[in-house]
Amino acid sequence: MKLYDHSVTVSSKRLNLFLKEIGVTDIERVEVNVREGGNLDQSYQDKSVNGKVPLLELDDGSYLSETVAISRYFDEITPNDLNLFGASTLERAKVEMWNRIVEIDGIQNAFQAFRNLSGIYSDRENCVEAWGEEAKLELSCSCLNSTSNWVSLST
Amino acid sequence: MKLYDHSVTVSSKRLNLFLKEIGVTDIERVEVNVREGGNLDQSYQDKSVNGKVPLLELDDGSYLSETVAISRYFDEITPNDLNLFGASTLERAKVEMWNRIVEIDGIQNAFQAFRNLSGIYSDRENCVEAWGEEAKLELSCSCLNSTSNWVSLST
Repeated sequence: MKLYDHSVTVSSKRLNLFLKEIGVTDIERVEVNVREGGNLDQSYQDKSVNGKVPLLELDDGSYLSETVAISRYFDEITPNDLNLFGASTLERAKVEMWNRIVEIDGIQNAFQAFRNLSGIYSDRENCVEAWGEEAKLELSCSCLNSTSNWVSLST
Repeated sequence: MKLYDHSVTVSSKRLNLFLKEIGVTDIERVEVNVREGGNLDQSYQDKSVNGKVPLLELDDGSYLSETVAISRYFDEITPNDLNLFGASTLERAKVEMWNRIVEIDGIQNAFQAFRNLSGIYSDRENCVEAWGEEAKLELSCSCLNSTSNWVSLST
């Protein structure tokens, strides 16, 4: 297996945190500098269906995209008793729920605010400042800013 | 159990399609008219951590948000051999991957284009027309528009 990622991105950090937790340390890695467009060339696009990092190359030569998909794959092939995706039906559903809330209401709003306000990827997308401001507002109003929700998230 | 949803929304349609596939037909339902703001009042906000539909009220009085979390919950408690989340480690990872690609690159771009261009929720959010156009463009350029990807999605 070979893991293509760009270690400074949120998605790669999220995956690498997961891999460290379950004890995966010996995987071959290829750094793809997304900020410099390393994911835009044809050879990378041929591997990655959505052109994003992280990307896992499997031993059969097929590829797996999306952080959570790669995390689930490693979780199943790596013996561990952490049950990071939950240990019971209800726990698994709650983990899925909070993972999605943090991702949709949190990370994606933060991404859109950052990308549209900073213009970091203006070489490959049209930045809309007003949307960056709206995403920032959505983030600040989201349920993730309620202390009581953080309590239920941690239990 | 009680399912709060608004049957015309994409999320509710997605969940209801899943429930029909696995044979769940006898659940008590409460229609929440999101377009008329039925999810904005305090009694609904007290139940739903993110204020969205669908929402599942469990028999212990707790609540489960997020379409995929509710789908996973029903899939586990409903005897069926469809394996809609995948039957093997690789299949489960591939289902997760495609589910997320369709959702992030497809549904969310479509949502943002629709909401920002139509102004359907302008009573509760600032609509940014330029972002609606950008989301529409992202949707048309996404990997979901490649025929070869639809072939791999169906296998």
